[in-house]
Amino acid sequence: MEKIAALGLGLIGGSLGLALQQAGIAKHIAGYDSNPDVTYQALARGAITDICNTAEKAVQQADIVILATPILAMPELLKRIAPVLKPGVLVTDTASTKTQILTWAKTLLPANVVFVGGHPMAGREHSGIEAAEVGLFAGCAYCLIPAVQSSSEAVAQLSEIVLRLGAHPLVIDAERHDRLVAGISHLPFVLSSALVQCLGKEEDWNEMTTLVAGGFRDMSRLAAGSSTMYRDICATNKEEILNWLDAMALQLDSIRSLIARDDDALEPYFAQAKKIRETAFN
Amino acid sequence: MEKIAALGLGLIGGSLGLALQQAGIAKHIAGYDSNPDVTYQALARGAITDICNTAEKAVQQADIVILATPILAMPELLKRIAPVLKPGVLVTDTASTKTQILTWAKTLLPANVVFVGGHPMAGREHSGIEAAEVGLFAGCAYCLIPAVQSSSEAVAQLSEIVLRLGAHPLVIDAERHDRLVAGISHLPFVLSSALVQCLGKEEDWNEMTTLVAGGFRDMSRLAAGSSTMYRDICATNKEEILNWLDAMALQLDSIRSLIARDDDALEPYFAQAKKIRETAFN
Repeated sequence: MEKIAALGLGLIGGSLGLALQQAGIAKHIAGYDSNPDVTYQALARGAITDICNTAEKAVQQADIVILATPILAMPELLKRIAPVLKPGVLVTDTASTKTQILTWAKTLLPANVVFVGGHPMAGREHSGIEAAEVGLFAGCAYCLIPAVQSSSEAVAQLSEIVLRLGAHPLVIDAERHDRLVAGISHLPFVLSSALVQCLGKEEDWNEMTTLVAGGFRDMSRLAAGSSTMYRDICATNKEEILNWLDAMALQLDSIRSLIARDDDALEPYFAQAKKIRETAFN
Repeated sequence: MEKIAALGLGLIGGSLGLALQQAGIAKHIAGYDSNPDVTYQALARGAITDICNTAEKAVQQADIVILATPILAMPELLKRIAPVLKPGVLVTDTASTKTQILTWAKTLLPANVVFVGGHPMAGREHSGIEAAEVGLFAGCAYCLIPAVQSSSEAVAQLSEIVLRLGAHPLVIDAERHDRLVAGISHLPFVLSSALVQCLGKEEDWNEMTTLVAGGFRDMSRLAAGSSTMYRDICATNKEEILNWLDAMALQLDSIRSLIARDDDALEPYFAQAKKIRETAFN
């Protein structure tokens, strides 16, 4: 049983607290959130066992520290906890972008602690401690991103924990992670938000909403996500997201041309997209 | 109880057959599909009560004829049934685009039958008679598009049937329908297919599939739809879809700029998209 500190108790931090206890990995989880109401809710929901009113207090006894705050809150938090971490402690995070956090960890944490980045590929339409669920990570990929100074023992330890949460650990370097995730995860939320903005600008939007069916519901679901999280992701993975947006613009040009000239290649284009999609779910 | 003929027994035609019987609107449904196996499956599933091996036979006794075939199969079908329709019969369809079908109906059907276009805003990831469900239309909008020669009695009769299926009838003219639906329904499937093609072209696609989470699943679901249906929709609603694609390209340019210059307006952009989306589901 590890002593764990959870900093940031939203959907991901709260769900990790629940799952770590259910899996028997932690008996005591010291929890801190910048919003004290959230910390109390996390305790009431059983996501943490001890309330701490500062991040420093939460990490003092911890063997493992998990940062699950908004990305842009992380550097300040790392600065605050750096002086009070136990030597040898394993620090990890749950941010959706990794290159930036690894740089921060390298410059802000002392040399005698081990940082391994983490990114559970799990999410929900709703955020916050209210939305936390014990089974959030079951069946999910969970990326582990070793820092230059990470020990292989620390990566192995975190892999073992991820497995016990029912998730699939996937060790991947930060640059590669950020490029692939920009495509499979960040481009989709940018597209979803842009689609909603595109339609919502229309003067007939109100009447259009009466025609909504499952297709629009699916395509707009990501637009209901956290605007600050999306902003933070864009800020810390800008180049990769811009590259994918450029690729997507070319792709839309292609299909536009096929439609405009009644091209016989249009039906095969759709059929191929269907086949490609199947490869992701088989 | 009406005598109904259902031509085309896929997801929509099959589900209509099931729902019309459950609602007590039809006791006998004469069914025809260009694929005889599908017609037998429709009978086995209880979606129709009588098998017909030609469209002409199916419509001979009918008071109401429903065309639920692929759009591009409709003109040929209208030509074939035109000589054998009973005088005064109500003909309707279920196509996702309406301007074109109204033109076909006007030129190909005799003056003594009444055509009212129909478009149930219902769909599923899977198509075909196997996917048919009795409750497919419950709670859905169901557009009714009067032709120039439609009687108000015929529109009222169809509205009544739609209500008894648990759907919401929405009378709308063809041009307006095609423009709004191009935005809320056609643009989304074009985007979904383009997103999948964009990512699938990447050499790292296989590794990317290991990182798939709910976001990509939602955003790619429409890409799993019928390629021939999408092709037919694009062919018969080209200008409106191209207009929306142009609006979407401008929208993507806007968000690209916000991201590229770390604009403070990016977070409000996402927040506003979230709010706009809520107006569609409240």
